[in-house]
Amino acid sequence: MKKFSMIATWRMAFEGVQEGLSLLSNDNGSEIAVERAIILTENNPYYKSVGFGGLPNEHCEVELDAAWMNGDTLAIGAVANIKDFANPISIAKKLSEERFNSFMVGKGAEDFAHKLGFERKNMLTERAKRMWELKIKEIQDKKLLTPYDGHDTVCILGKDCNGTIIAGTSTSGLFMKRSGRVGDSPLSGSGFYADSTVGAAAATGLGEDIMKGCLSYEVVKLMEQGVSPQEAAEKTVLDFSKKLRQRYGRCGAISIIALDKNGDYGVGTNVEFSFVAGYENEEAKVYIANLIEDKVVIEVASQEWLDNYEKRIKTPIEELK
Amino acid sequence: MKKFSMIATWRMAFEGVQEGLSLLSNDNGSEIAVERAIILTENNPYYKSVGFGGLPNEHCEVELDAAWMNGDTLAIGAVANIKDFANPISIAKKLSEERFNSFMVGKGAEDFAHKLGFERKNMLTERAKRMWELKIKEIQDKKLLTPYDGHDTVCILGKDCNGTIIAGTSTSGLFMKRSGRVGDSPLSGSGFYADSTVGAAAATGLGEDIMKGCLSYEVVKLMEQGVSPQEAAEKTVLDFSKKLRQRYGRCGAISIIALDKNGDYGVGTNVEFSFVAGYENEEAKVYIANLIEDKVVIEVASQEWLDNYEKRIKTPIEELK
Repeated sequence: MKKFSMIATWRMAFEGVQEGLSLLSNDNGSEIAVERAIILTENNPYYKSVGFGGLPNEHCEVELDAAWMNGDTLAIGAVANIKDFANPISIAKKLSEERFNSFMVGKGAEDFAHKLGFERKNMLTERAKRMWELKIKEIQDKKLLTPYDGHDTVCILGKDCNGTIIAGTSTSGLFMKRSGRVGDSPLSGSGFYADSTVGAAAATGLGEDIMKGCLSYEVVKLMEQGVSPQEAAEKTVLDFSKKLRQRYGRCGAISIIALDKNGDYGVGTNVEFSFVAGYENEEAKVYIANLIEDKVVIEVASQEWLDNYEKRIKTPIEELK
Repeated sequence: MKKFSMIATWRMAFEGVQEGLSLLSNDNGSEIAVERAIILTENNPYYKSVGFGGLPNEHCEVELDAAWMNGDTLAIGAVANIKDFANPISIAKKLSEERFNSFMVGKGAEDFAHKLGFERKNMLTERAKRMWELKIKEIQDKKLLTPYDGHDTVCILGKDCNGTIIAGTSTSGLFMKRSGRVGDSPLSGSGFYADSTVGAAAATGLGEDIMKGCLSYEVVKLMEQGVSPQEAAEKTVLDFSKKLRQRYGRCGAISIIALDKNGDYGVGTNVEFSFVAGYENEEAKVYIANLIEDKVVIEVASQEWLDNYEKRIKTPIEELK
């Protein structure tokens, strides 16, 4: 049994998880740790699929989705399709305190957040705008039929010393999405699910496909039956990818993180997938998961991988192409 | 094995299911039958929680949610928080053909629907407006803290002669909801789920609570394990209601319909719940389900019940109170 534990999707969660684990080690609850970890990810202008600097929709508008679930009470809060708020995760967390109207979208969600005093911020950065301009040019030059790419949600699962498990998600969604598109990230059971008596799971990838399988809930159900987080996440992604290819004809990228009530974690993926994890006596590290012959192989990210990542996300704006 | 079968939530689905069964008996697919059945419900001005005549939000605006799932391909389409379109279900069905952007909300969804030529219609009726005015007065007179009531989604599950199972949902959501509120009805796994190799389920009631348990997916998972639709729906509602009271302190109204791949159906509920069902050689009937000592008891609606219902929904506007 690990006293406290965190796991998160993608390299971008690293600084957040580091601070989150430090908060947990100082006896803070997972509510504080997960919110703080996601805020740090949202605030970082170099992470192009979450919060400030997130890539915009077809009209160059940054539309944000986020969700929060408390595994003790099963309370959920979520927002979708909101513009120009600094920290969507905090709005979702606040909504989880509401018995009614706990999932809000669009202008209504923005009006609610305004009244509660949440910080407004133009979430479009120069870098994101430049990437949007380059994509528009690429669509025209190459006559792309599906301009969509990039859909990395930050999902963070945290368990504290009291056993409370929190799941949080935040994303700017699919790059070049239609205005109004909502993915899996704010949807209970698909983008996330948490039950402190069992564990939690959260997903990133093509939301339209993840919601066809209700995958986060599926992982938690498997853990409830005694399956380990690693096996549950791995099996869920593998089985569903096969099923969807058979039934729907294709399957997008899907990665899932899982955390059980003992603080043990696991991941499933059908692509190369970086994630961050750490727990009591084990500092936050970036790991890379790959699917090799239907098995998920996990290794610690090499210094070379980390250096390349850093260089790539900080490419000077004028050198972007 | 029933060649074709339909089940739907609430008395309001009766005329739709009647026509849907007639379509199925004439070798039409469940796609045609379910869409038509929901359109009939949406179009009826006397049904106050769905489509035309649906009760409005806090600002007297009718905001509509709908979803569509094809159990063969697992394709999903959904809309939420849209105003003034005659048939949200048809927009959701259309979106289920899209690989990307298949769940859309608010203005973006409206713009999309406009471009595809879907019929616009002011969905606020004189009757609904009067009910809103009376509720506003009641809130002021009685200083109500939670003005919310009424959240009956029409959910229809249909299986055709080819074994294709379709799930469709449509609702105006919680009466007096905050603008932008989204319930469970457009959320995969919570409001609906369909897999033609297993069966389908859909939910109505307090969406904020239904999404805490991902209840439609849970019912389908149980049926996959060999549990009958009746037992699956009944057990899911009962177990989850108890769990939520324990963990969250309370549980709202929840009713679930289920249909398996053989065309057999079942319902679970924690309130008095009317539903409509019929199949090959069994015409559409209205049934009433009640939870009595932790068991769901189902009976055919009496003529008295049906007459009272008819009288109630058609109360002259000037006599409403």
